[in-house]
This record gives sequence, structure tokens and C-alpha cells, in this order.
Amino acid sequence: MRVAAGAIARKWLFERYGIVIRGYMAQLGPVEIPFASWADVPGNAFFAPNQAVVPQLETYMDELRKSGDSVGARINVVASGVPVGWGEPVYDRLDADIAYAMMSINAVKGVEIGAGFASVAQLGTEHSDQMSPEGFLSNQAGGVLGGISTGQDVVVSMAIKPTSSTRLDRQTIDKAGEPVVVNTHGRHDPCVGIRATPIAEAMLAIVLMDHALRHRAQNADVSTATPKIAGLAPGGVQAVPSPRAED
Amino acid sequence: MRVAAGAIARKWLFERYGIVIRGYMAQLGPVEIPFASWADVPGNAFFAPNQAVVPQLETYMDELRKSGDSVGARINVVASGVPVGWGEPVYDRLDADIAYAMMSINAVKGVEIGAGFASVAQLGTEHSDQMSPEGFLSNQAGGVLGGISTGQDVVVSMAIKPTSSTRLDRQTIDKAGEPVVVNTHGRHDPCVGIRATPIAEAMLAIVLMDHALRHRAQNADVSTATPKIAGLAPGGVQAVPSPRAED
Repeated sequence: MRVAAGAIARKWLFERYGIVIRGYMAQLGPVEIPFASWADVPGNAFFAPNQAVVPQLETYMDELRKSGDSVGARINVVASGVPVGWGEPVYDRLDADIAYAMMSINAVKGVEIGAGFASVAQLGTEHSDQMSPEGFLSNQAGGVLGGISTGQDVVVSMAIKPTSSTRLDRQTIDKAGEPVVVNTHGRHDPCVGIRATPIAEAMLAIVLMDHALRHRAQNADVSTATPKIAGLAPGGVQAVPSPRAED
Repeated sequence: MRVAAGAIARKWLFERYGIVIRGYMAQLGPVEIPFASWADVPGNAFFAPNQAVVPQLETYMDELRKSGDSVGARINVVASGVPVGWGEPVYDRLDADIAYAMMSINAVKGVEIGAGFASVAQLGTEHSDQMSPEGFLSNQAGGVLGGISTGQDVVVSMAIKPTSSTRLDRQTIDKAGEPVVVNTHGRHDPCVGIRATPIAEAMLAIVLMDHALRHRAQNADVSTATPKIAGLAPGGVQAVPSPRAED
């Protein structure tokens, strides 16, 4: 249902604003996946942005499946072309609504916007994104400042926990409170994160379309004279290239 | 306003359910603060749960202030005594509402529940919390499973970015789009995270009270025969001890 609604929202956002939303798997259990290209993502079952890593992921999953255990994953989602000004400054902030939407996906245990938890150890001069007439020089903010979109790419990362149902024995209790052992046979994905990328893309699209409509309701007739600059200046540095439509 | 509302919610939650909510600073810039005791938290200006680390934090902040730069922080908040069953399984999940509330605090760039991003690299047998008749044996879940409270401590962690206003020069543009240098003089906290702990406690209290009222509206007359077990069994292991009232 979410993915169906998200498909409509993605299409609408692209047609009206040229917004492109794409996600990928950034880490599978202990295996970090260096970003190579958006073009690699649809070519493998993991949504991995690096075809060269896929054999390693397949070997890892085969061994994991044999062991009977499960594992977590990290999924990133990026929206490019989001106009400046979507969101609210206090309660229904764009980043707060994104966090709510992502944490509503089963098995998600953490959500980051932009630099996320890396910002804990950053200095202000490392974190803050400088601007030039040609655009922003970096994107630590992940496209949201003060709850409102900046025109930079909106960058979201999330943690997916390991599948809870496995065939390995776990201690639990029954309805009478007596100790029993539980294990679950049958078909279970050893990593639910492998199927999470389209869901994360859908949820980001739904939140953005919601804010597009709210922005139109509030500001449809408002025109501004402030200069429009690029989300990223030529030579500007960000962790992941924009998910452009032509890829 | 949030903190005032949170004070009422905390009092109500304690009187009705014995819920205790406490937060602390877990990291200041590069300085990780090992948890020593809840009793240490009110005794220093950082809300640090470890009095022995405070001189190091003071020295770090003095040097940072002289440099003119700013830094981020990690804040953790824990609620103990939350009854089983608060929350919803799909949209207004307890963890999704917590993520929304925390990300609505200025400067927050990431939110984790329980193991959070550590769950990416965990195996299912590491992450899943086993149960015994005496209670849960661990708390990787952070007190929420399937969007619903489990009776374990609700454990939330968040990333606060460095203060954006500093006296150091940063490149930006003016209203005409021309390049200018910006710096901000006057009084500015070099780390807004130092003041964030009471806000995070307040937001967790508000979300929990909201879910308490929703739970009452939906289930006030429902009684269950399922056994009540402790949030943590004697000898059970969790990262941070419960914030008990008597501390």
C-alpha cells in the first residue's frame, strides 16, 4: 500500500518539480558498500550501488542462510530537485516528518538526515554548508535546515535491524509464563533490509508530496526576489552524487 | 513551552504509572562520556552521567570557546516503567512518534531507538532480546517492538549538530546573490547540545503521555491474562541502568 502510494507521489513530484528520488543499500551486516554509481542499483537484488561488491554480498548471504541467523542493513535515500522552502520551522518540520515516516517502516531502529550521528563529533566549521553564487559548497545538512528544505539534495539514512524470526533457538515464555524455546521454520528472509529500499523511497516521496501540497496551500501566490542558487555548486562536495533522471 | 508541557507530562506519568524519565549527555564532540551513575547527572552543567569526566569537558569547552568554533553532542533519554502495549503497529507507532518528536528539536540530525545504527551489523541472535519468566534478558529493542511498548526501558539517542552561529568567517551570499562573508558576534553557545537534555526528556514525556491517553481511550476496559514479566530480569544486561526514582 505504501509503495503503491509512493509510486504515484514519485511520478507527481517528478512531473511537477523534476524531483528524482532514489535509494540504495549502503551496508549489509558488516559489509560496507562504497557508492559507485546509481546505474548499478537496479542491476542486482540488493539495490547495491556498486556491482563489484555484489559477489561478496551473495557469498555473505549464502553463509548466513546456512547458519540460520539473520542480519541488519543500512539503507540511504536521496531526493534531488526539492525546491527551497518546503517544511515548517517548529512542529511539522520536514526532517521530523521524514523521521516519523522512516521509523514507521518495520524493523527501522534509527534515522539520520545528512551528516546524522557524524555531526556529534564535527566542529561547526566542518558541519556548516557554505554558499557561493553558484550554489552550496557541501551538503552536511542533508537538504534541511531549521525544518525547511534548502534546495540541496534531501539525504536520509536508516538502520534496519536483523530479522527477528529465525530457525535458531531463542529463550522465551509461553502464555502461562513458563519458559519455552522458540524457533521459526519456513521461508524467512535472513535480511529484511534487502527489500527495504523501495519502501524507503516510497515513504520519502509521500512525505515530500504532502509538504508540496501544504506549501502550495500556504504560499501559492507568494513570489520572492531572493536569488535562486544550485543545490550544489560546480566542484561542491557531497557524500553521494545526486540521483539524476538521466542515469 | 515544550519543557513546561513536558514537566506536567512527567509528573502525570510518574503519579499514574511510576514512569521515570531521565536524560544525559553521552558524548560532547569527540569526548565520549562513559555512563557512571544517574546521581551524577544533576551535579554538573553538562548533564554528564560521570562526574570524573567533567573537568575534561570543561577544558574542552574552554579551548573551543577560545577558538571561536562550535561542536555537536549526543544526548540519550531513558523512560523506565512504561507499561506493555502502548503504541500502534503501523502508522502512529510509538517509535515513529518518538522519532518525530526528537527530530522536531532544533539541531537534531539523527534519532536511534535501542541499538539504533549498531543493529545494522548485528546478527539476529545478538539483537533479539530473549525472555525468561523473570523478565527480558537484554534490551536491544529499546523498549519498542512492532511499534508497541514491551515493558522494557524505552531508550532513545539523538545527534545534535554543532551550533551554526559562530564568530568564524563563513562564505555565503547576500539578498542580491553576491558573495559575502558572514560571522556572528555576541553570546552564542559553542555547543547547543549542552542545553538539550531537558528538552529531550520533555519531548519523550509528551509522546508517552499522548500514547497513555490513546491507550486508555482504546483499551480502558480490556483486561488480559498474559503474564506480567519484568522489563529486565535480575542479571539481565542493558547498556544503561534504569533511571529509578530513588536515585
